[in-house]
Amino acid sequence: MSTENPWKTLSSSRVYTNPWMSVREDKVIRPDGQDGIYGVIETRVATGVVALTPEREIYLVGQYRYPTEVYSWEIIQGGADENEDRLSACKRELQEEAGLVAETWTPIGGEIHLSNCISSERGYVYAAEGLSNTEASPDGTEVLDLKKVRLSEAVRMAACGEIVDAVSIIGILLTEKWLGGSR
Amino acid sequence: MSTENPWKTLSSSRVYTNPWMSVREDKVIRPDGQDGIYGVIETRVATGVVALTPEREIYLVGQYRYPTEVYSWEIIQGGADENEDRLSACKRELQEEAGLVAETWTPIGGEIHLSNCISSERGYVYAAEGLSNTEASPDGTEVLDLKKVRLSEAVRMAACGEIVDAVSIIGILLTEKWLGGSR
Repeated sequence: MSTENPWKTLSSSRVYTNPWMSVREDKVIRPDGQDGIYGVIETRVATGVVALTPEREIYLVGQYRYPTEVYSWEIIQGGADENEDRLSACKRELQEEAGLVAETWTPIGGEIHLSNCISSERGYVYAAEGLSNTEASPDGTEVLDLKKVRLSEAVRMAACGEIVDAVSIIGILLTEKWLGGSR
Repeated sequence: MSTENPWKTLSSSRVYTNPWMSVREDKVIRPDGQDGIYGVIETRVATGVVALTPEREIYLVGQYRYPTEVYSWEIIQGGADENEDRLSACKRELQEEAGLVAETWTPIGGEIHLSNCISSERGYVYAAEGLSNTEASPDGTEVLDLKKVRLSEAVRMAACGEIVDAVSIIGILLTEKWLGGSR
């Protein structure tokens, strides 16, 4: 077994760019030695925040998602801006979307690769505790609803398809695992 | 609270296509009334298979993922071909990647939206039980390793970042939940 890269990249060109993502197409030699192409999506780091109260409730944000054409309840999330570290992005999103600041931040799980057949996108989740109110400031592309649900209810929603967003499902299931029966 | 689409689509054009995905760019009016654009990735349906033995082990497939540039251990998965239903895609992937056929198929969780800020991609996971051997036939782009691990070990890997693929993390955590303490 080899964990080395079995692909060879011959050339690479940018075929589409907008402010949120870009697509490159590589000319490659495939693992079986045949010539081919590989299109790769490149986008910002995805960050998710499980904002957790002492009563074991979490905040869910509801919004219409243009690409999937559905209204979606999710943990707080957003993309890290260029030169912005993940935790700073989480803090910014928690404030912008939920009007909250947190005292304690804990990484939940490891790196998440959202769609590794076609995209290099990475996601990271943090739990935020010790919450207090500040001013919310959603940007112009966001029309948000906010609600608090019990973590156990969020787990139920994630397990039955009521929550569909991958980062949210993972964040919720791993937060339950992290807390265990202890709190 | 409205769950209606707050975006208006003015026009839509295809900006990139390859055999596995395409990108369209829409001219839109954003929720705040401003003009804008939205780039949307469209790709095949993603399917994942948790191939489960009576001893509560599952099969993991290892392969190098070109877009993320890492070697990745994952549940069995692949994209559904056009006009191929999800379950047929799962059966085909189980045979091609693991050389297995299954007697019983059970949907695990609901629909998964992998990256709903930029992509309409949907994923679905099934548990496959009653496994027996047949011939494997990976395609030319795949160099695969196969191993069996205890489900509890896969859960540990999914919770600590040793398994990074989103569909795999979700499939493994929800299979554990589905089985509960009962088996």
